[in-house]
Amino acid sequence: MIDNCNDPSLRSFIDVPADSPFPIQNLPFGVFVKSENEGDYVSTVGFAIGDWILDLGEIIQARLLAPSLQDQLFTPPWDLAYLMAMERADWRSLRLGISKLLRRDNPTLRDNSELRAKALVRRRDARMLLPCRIPNYTDFYSSREHATNVGIMLRGPDNALMPNWLHLPVAYHGRASSVVVNGTDIRRPLGQTKADDAAAPTFGPSRSLDFELELGALIGRGNQLGTPISTGNAAEHVFGLVLVNDWSARDIQKWEYQPLGPFLSKNFATSISPWVVTLDALEPFRVAGPKQEPEPLPYLRCQGNWAYDIHLEIWLQTAKMTEPVRISATNAKHLYWNLCQQIAHHTIGGCNLQTGDLLASGTISGPTPDSLGSMLELAWKGTRPITLPSGETRTFLQDGDRVMIKGWCQGDGYRVGFGEVTGVVLPALV
Amino acid sequence: MIDNCNDPSLRSFIDVPADSPFPIQNLPFGVFVKSENEGDYVSTVGFAIGDWILDLGEIIQARLLAPSLQDQLFTPPWDLAYLMAMERADWRSLRLGISKLLRRDNPTLRDNSELRAKALVRRRDARMLLPCRIPNYTDFYSSREHATNVGIMLRGPDNALMPNWLHLPVAYHGRASSVVVNGTDIRRPLGQTKADDAAAPTFGPSRSLDFELELGALIGRGNQLGTPISTGNAAEHVFGLVLVNDWSARDIQKWEYQPLGPFLSKNFATSISPWVVTLDALEPFRVAGPKQEPEPLPYLRCQGNWAYDIHLEIWLQTAKMTEPVRISATNAKHLYWNLCQQIAHHTIGGCNLQTGDLLASGTISGPTPDSLGSMLELAWKGTRPITLPSGETRTFLQDGDRVMIKGWCQGDGYRVGFGEVTGVVLPALV
Repeated sequence: MIDNCNDPSLRSFIDVPADSPFPIQNLPFGVFVKSENEGDYVSTVGFAIGDWILDLGEIIQARLLAPSLQDQLFTPPWDLAYLMAMERADWRSLRLGISKLLRRDNPTLRDNSELRAKALVRRRDARMLLPCRIPNYTDFYSSREHATNVGIMLRGPDNALMPNWLHLPVAYHGRASSVVVNGTDIRRPLGQTKADDAAAPTFGPSRSLDFELELGALIGRGNQLGTPISTGNAAEHVFGLVLVNDWSARDIQKWEYQPLGPFLSKNFATSISPWVVTLDALEPFRVAGPKQEPEPLPYLRCQGNWAYDIHLEIWLQTAKMTEPVRISATNAKHLYWNLCQQIAHHTIGGCNLQTGDLLASGTISGPTPDSLGSMLELAWKGTRPITLPSGETRTFLQDGDRVMIKGWCQGDGYRVGFGEVTGVVLPALV
Repeated sequence: MIDNCNDPSLRSFIDVPADSPFPIQNLPFGVFVKSENEGDYVSTVGFAIGDWILDLGEIIQARLLAPSLQDQLFTPPWDLAYLMAMERADWRSLRLGISKLLRRDNPTLRDNSELRAKALVRRRDARMLLPCRIPNYTDFYSSREHATNVGIMLRGPDNALMPNWLHLPVAYHGRASSVVVNGTDIRRPLGQTKADDAAAPTFGPSRSLDFELELGALIGRGNQLGTPISTGNAAEHVFGLVLVNDWSARDIQKWEYQPLGPFLSKNFATSISPWVVTLDALEPFRVAGPKQEPEPLPYLRCQGNWAYDIHLEIWLQTAKMTEPVRISATNAKHLYWNLCQQIAHHTIGGCNLQTGDLLASGTISGPTPDSLGSMLELAWKGTRPITLPSGETRTFLQDGDRVMIKGWCQGDGYRVGFGEVTGVVLPALV
């Protein structure tokens, strides 16, 4: 059998529609609870394949992995942290083993109906959890289009980008405790806001609740405090990518953020998609990123192409709508600073990354008005309301609004996808 | 026996000098490894008493705690997280039990030489560890004097305080992974800096390495995402306080911090002292804080006195000096925003605190030139170099410099102290 899990000609004995995010070329890792085990907190690791999940625990117990992996996985992991802390070669070997097990021409699992019944779970019969505890969450600001748009709104077109922006991948520390998984409802936050013409701030629910379309990298192996990771080694430390919705309260942000950055405007919730798509699965979709001018300092220079051609969409459904509507479509390849540069920068002063850390890209906006990654930009600070098929308009999110972010790489006849990250806005506590 | 662990008349059968930070009125919690167990990773919880540590593991195994506690502590905890997640009533009960065991008139431990030999460890024969894993680290900015000084240096005296500062306790998310314990060497970070008159940034070791004297609160029980903690309940969620040195690279900070706040300038290291002094032990030292004008919004209002009269000192010893010299002395009572307000603000939008979270106060500066909490302020941005007894001068830290922060509450004839947090600056990697 071929060892290239990404070969477009591979087929599984499980039928996968051409528009499914989870063909055999993907095999993302996730953590799930079977509906029948709800309440028992029995989670395990699985791989998405079409409408199904392959339960790694059952595969381990059936001893169907390579001996070197069986030795390391003597007990089924209950989340991804244990796997993520292994070497990248181990993840690769595991993905290859799963790929082979699921191939159309391999009878091992295909013809073992007893094992199939135990090891294959319908996705609709499972609840997905966070892939792991998130020890640290960092949010970058790596889309030039987004930074420029926000800069124009705040400071006008002549000084849109801050002087540092083209020299380093700007970032801040986000809140790890409030990273939640797809499907978690989002409570509108209370907080202080101040109108430009008001003498003092007032307290109440945010009136400028926004989403931010981002991609997030989950760190596999970390580094020791004091030991930077070079751009050339950075990818070895990335387990995979997820979709991120970095919910933001713009009015709270505007009042609080000087001089130390966003705090309550962001830390009420950050949603991620549950299926972790490995860098290996994304390998065929690496493309050149934007030209970087001025040339970055040596520690930020990279060999090769490190942008990813990932199509990204934002969908919105209000309480009055019967189905969601797409309000934006963009692509991860627009990101100016790539993941290798982000990791090299993050660690250059000695900061230690830990297994499970989430590094988000920052809002991903494209160059056109229909490719913007936040409501702030789509409705241009409230001045260009979006009109929805229901006749409603939006400048920011209203209670009951459901925001869905989807993403996938388009192969020839198949998609390597992320699934989605969705959240519904609940009214503020009063 | 009296149930007031703070009674100044209490004495232990262990001799404690009057200037020791750890009399029987304190009993801070810490995590240690006995020198004889180095390499085995056998850590356990203990209480500091004079020059000794009382090993909680031995007390549990000897079944000397109240039955309700024995039932919860069926196995000796290897760090503080398990205890911190209990109710405040449990911590109180545990401290009371330990207080009673150590009292001069209680023969249980005093006259049991076999148990004493096992349960009492000389502090010099133990290595202290972090009290627990730190899930999240938040750094406030709650000293008006510090914020004003920094504002004057950046923007001049007329706009020193940002407009939001008197209305909310400004804060940002720090880096949890690089919180280290007392005694950990600090590697000077590499990074980008840009001189005001330079066209482009350059790369190299920070030339403006600084300390920041802070206090930190460690969270006991957390709150659910979406459920704020009121000022009235905030203290129930605080396990205790530690000293914090929030190491800062001022030149990196100046170039990177717009618009999202400090990142690499802070995340290379944050040091904390190992002994956690409970709010219960600090109870006799609560005093009124600064008058707050304008009156805060209702969610930030507090009943009672929530400032703490904690004397704080910064000592510096260069490689050429044979002993350290005190370069600043201040007091925690100067802090404008108190811990209850910080917690209420942190959670008002729904953010969840977790057991073990570190909430630091921000640099604590007093009103006089000899009470400033950072080198940036003491040497006033490099314009007023500090002269040391060795004849050397300092505007920022040099390689080999040892910074020590101490703190204590002064009682009548005894001190409730924190011990110290110390770190030596190592040269940058080149």
